[in-house]
Amino acid sequence: MSASTVDPADPVFRLHLGGKLAVASTVPLTSREDLSLAYTPGVARVCEAIAADPALVDDYTWVSHTVAVVTDGSAVLGLGNIGPRAALPVMEGKAVLFKQFAGVDAVPVCLDTQDVDEIVATVRALAPSFGGINLEDISAPRCFEVERRLDEALPIPVFHDDQHGTAIVVLAALRNAASLLNRKLGDLRVTVSGAGAAGVAVTHMLVAGGVDPEQVVVCDSRGVIGRHRDDLTETKAHLAATTNAQGRRGDVTEALRGADVLIGVSGGRIPEVAVAGMAPGGIVFALANPTPEVDPEVAARHVAVVATGRSDYPNQINNVLAFPGVFRGALDARATRITDGMKVAAADAIAGVVDGALTPDAIVPSPLDPRVAPAVAEAVARAARHDGVARA
Amino acid sequence: MSASTVDPADPVFRLHLGGKLAVASTVPLTSREDLSLAYTPGVARVCEAIAADPALVDDYTWVSHTVAVVTDGSAVLGLGNIGPRAALPVMEGKAVLFKQFAGVDAVPVCLDTQDVDEIVATVRALAPSFGGINLEDISAPRCFEVERRLDEALPIPVFHDDQHGTAIVVLAALRNAASLLNRKLGDLRVTVSGAGAAGVAVTHMLVAGGVDPEQVVVCDSRGVIGRHRDDLTETKAHLAATTNAQGRRGDVTEALRGADVLIGVSGGRIPEVAVAGMAPGGIVFALANPTPEVDPEVAARHVAVVATGRSDYPNQINNVLAFPGVFRGALDARATRITDGMKVAAADAIAGVVDGALTPDAIVPSPLDPRVAPAVAEAVARAARHDGVARA
Repeated sequence: MSASTVDPADPVFRLHLGGKLAVASTVPLTSREDLSLAYTPGVARVCEAIAADPALVDDYTWVSHTVAVVTDGSAVLGLGNIGPRAALPVMEGKAVLFKQFAGVDAVPVCLDTQDVDEIVATVRALAPSFGGINLEDISAPRCFEVERRLDEALPIPVFHDDQHGTAIVVLAALRNAASLLNRKLGDLRVTVSGAGAAGVAVTHMLVAGGVDPEQVVVCDSRGVIGRHRDDLTETKAHLAATTNAQGRRGDVTEALRGADVLIGVSGGRIPEVAVAGMAPGGIVFALANPTPEVDPEVAARHVAVVATGRSDYPNQINNVLAFPGVFRGALDARATRITDGMKVAAADAIAGVVDGALTPDAIVPSPLDPRVAPAVAEAVARAARHDGVARA
Repeated sequence: MSASTVDPADPVFRLHLGGKLAVASTVPLTSREDLSLAYTPGVARVCEAIAADPALVDDYTWVSHTVAVVTDGSAVLGLGNIGPRAALPVMEGKAVLFKQFAGVDAVPVCLDTQDVDEIVATVRALAPSFGGINLEDISAPRCFEVERRLDEALPIPVFHDDQHGTAIVVLAALRNAASLLNRKLGDLRVTVSGAGAAGVAVTHMLVAGGVDPEQVVVCDSRGVIGRHRDDLTETKAHLAATTNAQGRRGDVTEALRGADVLIGVSGGRIPEVAVAGMAPGGIVFALANPTPEVDPEVAARHVAVVATGRSDYPNQINNVLAFPGVFRGALDARATRITDGMKVAAADAIAGVVDGALTPDAIVPSPLDPRVAPAVAEAVARAARHDGVARA
């Protein structure tokens, strides 16, 4: 069966028939009295109250527990630019996870444009109905500008999950791997292979969490990013200015020589010889899906801890450990944005769930562990208050 | 208590705490197996199938049962231009009604713009996530252009409920009132008081349903609309060209002299003397809420049948009789748009529910009558197929 053939008997297609979401009413509506409270004439009093005091929209509508999951379909899973309609099943799945793990009501919004100005204008226009904006599967480098402009424009949290969800879980996993190996984050030499949305955010988050930026080397498809490169986008030029203090050059094999940590977020293949060149007792996170940058069994011959993005190996680095609790916490605190402090707090909370039971095969909780999202939510809400962005 | 004061003990505010809607998952998600079907890696196969054949989005996502309820908050109930946030409780109420009566999953989308170009661009951009667009509480004359441009641009039904929902129920009620009085629609002299969104749509729908346009007189706040007026918008100039064949002039009292039917959709007061000047055995629909254009008890002194928009009088002309079934039928037929034929079919279906039990106090079904939406849906789907706009 080709990948795009529909087999109605296939459990995946059977499950998806009619989609995966519904809208539910949370109020009764069986009598004229119900109708006069939930709709006219009663509802007019609620409208008038919000018109007089717009902050009441948080109390008397669903915005306080509702997030838009916004995509332009330009970078969906590993499938690439498949457009908004083909992206919808992923956004519905995301909404199912939001609900299941954190009780957040998420609505898929798949946009029929891939123009940055139009995406920003559209999301700004529809924002009043939602308490937060989860950006999803928008390709780099457009995703950076979309997120930055929306974060500046909107009074509600904006969070590009492919960047920050991944980065939070990577930081959580690295914290626990380092702890297991009795290493300090600030002493680790880290190579990040990939400088797209995830690579940039992972690098930023690791530094926010305590990794020494001078000890980080980032590679893109052309090799090590450093001041020697004259072909860099604005985002990569910033990486060149802040990382790679030793001025390394060359390919990923060069970058990995003597490194303690490899974080693969590129999808490119990394040869065994490169991993063999890492320092003893190393850590490899090979996160490409479905094909990790290094085969996890191969990596295990050379390093002490291995994680992937796949559910069929131990240590799955899965965004679902982060985004439901991050938004639940941000919404609970009525945060106006999501700060680095809130993201680091989320990573610490995820790491903390497995704190007492660390093994090389259990540096992160299972994606289905129900303890994670509440712990993340509480930590994120506390950090929002600490960082002065909470309204509750 | 002033209208904008919040009394948390008030049943209306108690009911609205936290809003009236939630998103529900319709698939299980408790095991790794569930996760691999509803999300990665399984979901990728559904995405690829839709990318290869976009029509599959109707089968394998929620769009086939989902509508966006879109407003700019410019004409909310009788409250006027209260903006998108204050409009949200009404849109949530609408979504509750969509679900309750027709199983349609409706999502409120309250827009932070009142610019026609921006509204059109925003709705076009977000349309791929939805199977239909219900426009709501957008002021005239902008609502006409917004609806026309979206109807042309989008391959899914677009329906401005304040226009067509009202118009459909008015046609249903007038059909039954005429039947009760042994009159034919084509013989009735009709005065429509109000030339905003509802007035224009009611006039159009009555003509589509069999009323003779030459026998219709429409009034706005400046009096009778006719060829003698030089102050008309494009929409009103069209009314002047197609109605009022006798060339009447003057105010609503002049317009009503000898008329069989008054349809008030203006909110302006109509004096008793004007109603007294109507032909014997007349029909008055005074639909302004909460204050009808004519007090229904006063009207009843002079005419045979009276209807209002209020729930505390008989014969409530309530849009909820139309919009849930209209969208259910349009979605069931996968209609690409909503034709006049579908609207007339909806009116006939509503009228038909009370067909055998007509009395002057029961010309329309109760808004809570569960027979209405299924009857409307079936009639609308059939009409969509008849009119060649159905894809299923």
